[in-house]
Amino acid sequence: MARIVKKFGGTSVGDMDRIRNVATRVAKAVADGDEVAVVVSAMSGVTNQLIGYCRDAATFHDAREYDTVVAAGEQITAGLLAMVLQDLGVPARSFMGWQIPLKTDGIHGAARIEDIDASALEACFAEGRVAVVAGFQGLADDNRITTLGRGGSDTSAVAIAAVVSADRCDIYTDVDGVYTTDPRIVPKARKLDKITYEEMLEMASLGAKVLQTRSVALAMRYGVRTQVLSSFEDLPGTLVVGEEEIVEQEIVSGIAYSRGEAKVTVVGLDDTPGKVSGVFSPLAKNNVNVDMIVQSASEDGTTTDVSFTVPEDDLQKTVAVLEDNRTSLGYKDLVYNGNVVKVSVVGLGMRSHAGVASRMFDTLAEKGINIQVISTSEIKVSVVIDAEYSELAVRALHTAYGLDRQD
Amino acid sequence: MARIVKKFGGTSVGDMDRIRNVATRVAKAVADGDEVAVVVSAMSGVTNQLIGYCRDAATFHDAREYDTVVAAGEQITAGLLAMVLQDLGVPARSFMGWQIPLKTDGIHGAARIEDIDASALEACFAEGRVAVVAGFQGLADDNRITTLGRGGSDTSAVAIAAVVSADRCDIYTDVDGVYTTDPRIVPKARKLDKITYEEMLEMASLGAKVLQTRSVALAMRYGVRTQVLSSFEDLPGTLVVGEEEIVEQEIVSGIAYSRGEAKVTVVGLDDTPGKVSGVFSPLAKNNVNVDMIVQSASEDGTTTDVSFTVPEDDLQKTVAVLEDNRTSLGYKDLVYNGNVVKVSVVGLGMRSHAGVASRMFDTLAEKGINIQVISTSEIKVSVVIDAEYSELAVRALHTAYGLDRQD
Repeated sequence: MARIVKKFGGTSVGDMDRIRNVATRVAKAVADGDEVAVVVSAMSGVTNQLIGYCRDAATFHDAREYDTVVAAGEQITAGLLAMVLQDLGVPARSFMGWQIPLKTDGIHGAARIEDIDASALEACFAEGRVAVVAGFQGLADDNRITTLGRGGSDTSAVAIAAVVSADRCDIYTDVDGVYTTDPRIVPKARKLDKITYEEMLEMASLGAKVLQTRSVALAMRYGVRTQVLSSFEDLPGTLVVGEEEIVEQEIVSGIAYSRGEAKVTVVGLDDTPGKVSGVFSPLAKNNVNVDMIVQSASEDGTTTDVSFTVPEDDLQKTVAVLEDNRTSLGYKDLVYNGNVVKVSVVGLGMRSHAGVASRMFDTLAEKGINIQVISTSEIKVSVVIDAEYSELAVRALHTAYGLDRQD
Repeated sequence: MARIVKKFGGTSVGDMDRIRNVATRVAKAVADGDEVAVVVSAMSGVTNQLIGYCRDAATFHDAREYDTVVAAGEQITAGLLAMVLQDLGVPARSFMGWQIPLKTDGIHGAARIEDIDASALEACFAEGRVAVVAGFQGLADDNRITTLGRGGSDTSAVAIAAVVSADRCDIYTDVDGVYTTDPRIVPKARKLDKITYEEMLEMASLGAKVLQTRSVALAMRYGVRTQVLSSFEDLPGTLVVGEEEIVEQEIVSGIAYSRGEAKVTVVGLDDTPGKVSGVFSPLAKNNVNVDMIVQSASEDGTTTDVSFTVPEDDLQKTVAVLEDNRTSLGYKDLVYNGNVVKVSVVGLGMRSHAGVASRMFDTLAEKGINIQVISTSEIKVSVVIDAEYSELAVRALHTAYGLDRQD
């Protein structure tokens, strides 16, 4: 017997047939003797409908009212799934965020969970009842409904799994696990049985869209064993766990890539203290999220070039901000390119293995791919390259690190 | 300056244009200096969608989950209307039943209001903010969402008007007021400027669908001046008020009629004590709502006939129950007819004026209409007649009591 929190996203509960499919899965787990709580998203069509209404209502809308309207979506799914479970003979009841309560701060549209009262959920487990929790939503101090923002239902599920000390949190989605890289690009990509939180975090933040960074970080913090699996097939997925659970650590676990990046180089900045921060503080003030930063001195040593990446959507704003500050910054030139991609090699094992980065550079060089920016962390090496080489680079690296499926 | 609770039903908020129209009306009242709170129903299409989901989910569904799902409808409208009001520069915020809280008993699907905390609403009035309340819903003791059943949003509005001591409760609907009778049958029907609670109650329970009996009874109990008016035209409607507000009382205020009735006669019942209750207690046990009851002794004085009306939908069940109990009841025959209509003359003035009933009987006799059952109360006379005469009877009575519009 295990205690499991199962989370089903918008496409997994997209219509009544799928909700019935979810109920059947839950019923099976209950029949197998598991204690189950379920976290659900809104039916994908309902979410679109509600967001459409809000857009239509007002261009600039009160985030509190927006949260009130869109949270109705999860409320509907939770009630319906509880009904269908009961119809299958599985005792069940729905919970809205405010009924648990799942308390959050007051940042509507992107609230953070502050506290979850586990008592109602524990009572459900004790009664052999499935708690069906509306994901993505919580209650602020002022008694108003909040929503958790992107990846909110995953976050709800992991947080609930943490407070009820679940043995596992199963995140059902439209992919069947975490792969060594995007299988659409590399047909030989392998599904990983296990991956560590740290690696998953790098993969998530680097563009692998399986799990949001936020829920992975939460799972890591509270040690919630989290499984990513398919809601349409009955197969084990990928377990995201602590390092100690992985006996034989792969040196490299996966190749991530992230489109939609842009590279900016500020050329000929005076090489004096404060000049570099002078570049980034106006960008921060304008909410530009700067990612990789590389600084290189010029040959004569009096000036320096600073390159960095930003989301492509922010490129125009970035350039405008830097142009506005041209006089005070005193740089010579501004070079930018929206057509780049970030490719990363991720693996916990590289902490103890030398040569991971150089193999990456060699592999790319062999294919004639020019590296524009490099950045490294303990468990990853990222490079920015021209976008047209992205598939080639990912495939070559996947092979070079021995990740290709053997069959 | 007046304090007004305005209620808008499902067709009045049927789409975003109509919600915008509602917001414009509310904004105008606020601009005129009124303190306004609004109670809204679900958008009519959304209600149908949610009910459809529930039907699809399970044939027999948990009323608590049903309430959770359908209450999302009012939640959506309340949030959207608050957004649109803000967009028009009117400070506004939404309230769900649980946020007020509007406490009810635990009878899901048909809950009764037990207590409304006025403090949050009073705070809104004090801040010059429009409270937009999700109608039809409340919170039970076990912290779950309840719905109030038929006419629930009207009931929410009247109850809220009562606790905030509103000067008036405006019920916006798709008709522009209460008429002397159904204008589709009698083109000369007149819109009443005022009607008393008692008369409205008789009209409502007799089939005039403008206001549900329940909300009228509540308005009467708490003396809430209630106006029925059109949400599509900007005209005064009909005020439902206490008798003291009506200076010159009409003898007859209106002619109501109610289709969907059936008449049952139990013939040749032993005329001994307990025999009549023997007929009605099994019907009550089977939830048959018996309306008019007439008893007549047979010529020899040893047996009696009992006639009564039931909703036509319950006729089959009624007959089945009586057949089942034939032996114990010991009646001779069972006669029934689904094809009847109840026509009623309603007026507070008839308490002090003789001859109202006899004018009714004379009028119907003149038209050759046979009266099958008669029942009277202090302020109404009802008859059951063959359904095919209903329009003729209503028109003739409307003229006979001087109700026709003179123009």
